[in-house]
Amino acid sequence: MPDQLPSKQDLIDVQNRIAPFVHRTPVLTSQTLNGFTGAQLFFKCENLQKMGAFKMRGAANAVASLTEEQKQKGVVTHSSGNFAQAVALAAKAANISAFIVMPNTAPKVKVAAVKEYGGQVTISGPTLKDREEATKKIITATGARFLHPSNQLEVILGQGTAAIELLEDVPDLDAIITPVGGGGLLAGSALAAHHFGMDCNVYAGEPANADDAYRALRSGKIETNHKVNTVADGLKTQLGDVNFPIILQLVDDIFLVSEAEIIAAMRHIWERMKIIVEPSSAVAFAAVLKNTTVFKDKKVGIVISGGNVDLSNLPF
Amino acid sequence: MPDQLPSKQDLIDVQNRIAPFVHRTPVLTSQTLNGFTGAQLFFKCENLQKMGAFKMRGAANAVASLTEEQKQKGVVTHSSGNFAQAVALAAKAANISAFIVMPNTAPKVKVAAVKEYGGQVTISGPTLKDREEATKKIITATGARFLHPSNQLEVILGQGTAAIELLEDVPDLDAIITPVGGGGLLAGSALAAHHFGMDCNVYAGEPANADDAYRALRSGKIETNHKVNTVADGLKTQLGDVNFPIILQLVDDIFLVSEAEIIAAMRHIWERMKIIVEPSSAVAFAAVLKNTTVFKDKKVGIVISGGNVDLSNLPF
Repeated sequence: MPDQLPSKQDLIDVQNRIAPFVHRTPVLTSQTLNGFTGAQLFFKCENLQKMGAFKMRGAANAVASLTEEQKQKGVVTHSSGNFAQAVALAAKAANISAFIVMPNTAPKVKVAAVKEYGGQVTISGPTLKDREEATKKIITATGARFLHPSNQLEVILGQGTAAIELLEDVPDLDAIITPVGGGGLLAGSALAAHHFGMDCNVYAGEPANADDAYRALRSGKIETNHKVNTVADGLKTQLGDVNFPIILQLVDDIFLVSEAEIIAAMRHIWERMKIIVEPSSAVAFAAVLKNTTVFKDKKVGIVISGGNVDLSNLPF
Repeated sequence: MPDQLPSKQDLIDVQNRIAPFVHRTPVLTSQTLNGFTGAQLFFKCENLQKMGAFKMRGAANAVASLTEEQKQKGVVTHSSGNFAQAVALAAKAANISAFIVMPNTAPKVKVAAVKEYGGQVTISGPTLKDREEATKKIITATGARFLHPSNQLEVILGQGTAAIELLEDVPDLDAIITPVGGGGLLAGSALAAHHFGMDCNVYAGEPANADDAYRALRSGKIETNHKVNTVADGLKTQLGDVNFPIILQLVDDIFLVSEAEIIAAMRHIWERMKIIVEPSSAVAFAAVLKNTTVFKDKKVGIVISGGNVDLSNLPF
């Protein structure tokens, strides 16, 4: 837990550090979707980021922040999702080793993607404990540095650079809204809005079926998900001790959305904006669609988090 | 048939005229797709254009070029595809009437889209003759001006503005490649490359199952499609007497691709670039994938023409 918030200069340093390794993604608009909400929407398309998600930013910053000694030993993470690919690709760009622990339940296509990006995959048992034990063994054997997908300051600051770019493109945003899962994107975006926005509110959308952040913002302490039965598979995780204090201090509200609302919002984005977004990415737009009175006549930046979906298994 | 090519200033005038009515679409890149081809690819994403296709540009220019008297009488076209939506939306922006003749075989979703954009739809019989007769009746009754989707100079110049923007973003392109159907996009892009490029070659991809332009470029005269059995439903039309002389003079070559190659290229774009493209849009990339020796180590601009697909009926 940081004693004080990271500074504006910290964020600028991160933005400069990762610039060679990430895309500056476009900000898209749609008159039709504006009409659905009564707001003026600006979609920051991190689905068009390298490896298809904002996770590339945090991974790139974590890797670029390593000391020379750390670089020689490489990095390790356990993930079955976008962060595994992001770490593998960021490590490849820096020419260092990436050890990725993936559960034996991970889809073959995701394992293949990590290997394609040069990651050294270790398959573990299916539970979190299995993954953590396999990770520990790798750290003991190699001295590789552990990278956490959402609860590590370098990662959080990297994720915040998407919102910095969004505010560079649309400086007078009234609000930014992101999905919230582990909390890295939300905390980073909140820091960006705090330092770069002009009185810019920060919100998140969260699946009602994995509502730990909604409850945490109200209770003032980290909460646990007792069920995570959501199509938004990137948002099943919970907040951590590094990102939660930032969220508690800087985030205005979190809105819950149902599974049907997530899928409907996802389809609107596919059909109207012609971009491929994963269900997690549609959660923020679903929250805007559901809470039109909050956002009416406002300029609202929506961070589209990623576009990694199985085209053979769509929810519509 | 123009006595001489439209000038660079003509294109600049068009670009300025339509700027308030169109998106400046992003140019995206993908290391993975570069790796597939050995070329450096720059995708001009007209699928992210208003109403989801480059057709918006030509329609916007045609409408904005009307005299005040013509504006009072409105415009008319017959189309079951993207041009119908483009004319309806461009007319709506200019606050004039758009009469759209659509065959009774047109998908209900396309008819609904035209109506949503404010078009006044007349349903005709299924043949080209039916549509032309219905169009004539409307012209007689209203005095509306007929807009052709590909064989009218205002439309061709409008379509060319996508390639102008692409060359503004990447001035030293070695080549631009577009799909070719009716020929408006190809002719307009060739004019843009001629006036704005630095020794920039121009190519097109065409479905082998609708290969009139490929044959026309070789025979020196407009050819007819005897079959149009292609998934690229936007490319079933043939060249016209206004765009063909431009194509014959300025286009370097046209490459044919099979149905399987179109679908494979489409899936690569969806999976790797996270954007929704219609089959017609994938034809140009399919041609690059198939002719890697032509494009190896070159900087190649690929115009992604549109993203209007039925998500419930994908070819993969």
